[in-house]
Amino acid sequence: MTAAVTRGVCRVMIEMGYAPVLELSLPNGRRADVTAISPKGEIVMVEVKSCRADFDVDSKWPEYKEYCDRFYFGVAEDFPRDLLPEDEGLIIADAFGGAVVRESETASLAGARRKTALIRIARHAAFRSLG
Amino acid sequence: MTAAVTRGVCRVMIEMGYAPVLELSLPNGRRADVTAISPKGEIVMVEVKSCRADFDVDSKWPEYKEYCDRFYFGVAEDFPRDLLPEDEGLIIADAFGGAVVRESETASLAGARRKTALIRIARHAAFRSLG
Repeated sequence: MTAAVTRGVCRVMIEMGYAPVLELSLPNGRRADVTAISPKGEIVMVEVKSCRADFDVDSKWPEYKEYCDRFYFGVAEDFPRDLLPEDEGLIIADAFGGAVVRESETASLAGARRKTALIRIARHAAFRSLG
Repeated sequence: MTAAVTRGVCRVMIEMGYAPVLELSLPNGRRADVTAISPKGEIVMVEVKSCRADFDVDSKWPEYKEYCDRFYFGVAEDFPRDLLPEDEGLIIADAFGGAVVRESETASLAGARRKTALIRIARHAAFRSLG
């Protein structure tokens, strides 16, 4: 389920012109499900939630927002959306694609943080691309 | 032959703490054989040359140097090294590893160029990591 939504979220990102990577480790110990970069270096993160329990146990998702310009939850069609904070971005997806149903606010990263984030993403993606 | 040297060059990069990506397309139409990023965002490029003819037909390798902090040629043990410019970095490699036998000069990219390069590398690596 999570894998299917993650795949659909990646497709949405690609359609929007972003290059997505999976499971980026962050300095705070968390791992971002999907991180994507625009041609201008804008960074989007998407936290995929599979079910109510998955959302309930995670009180720390706001920590992702320190590392990106935009943040979305990514869930399946049947996820109980009323659980999700109303002011965060939302992507509904299945294995074949999806759509942004609520736009994220944009909080631009400062230059130095963006540089650090771009280096982290590039190195992570490079190691993954080597297989 | 080229694939073996490229693989060895990647191993050298990883041992030096760099994350390598293959075949990065550049805005000038060239494609860098190996591009690697340090944890601080330093960018290295390595141009792999398989034989004399491969080097002779390529007069445009200096163009890589606009996109990296350090530049090396990567060749096999039996490559005729006297062909190569004496003031450029040199890595000798086979399929299993290699060594830097001549250090590259460091020409630091300006901030905006580095940012653009990091975005390009990150996006390229991301798409490759998706397979």
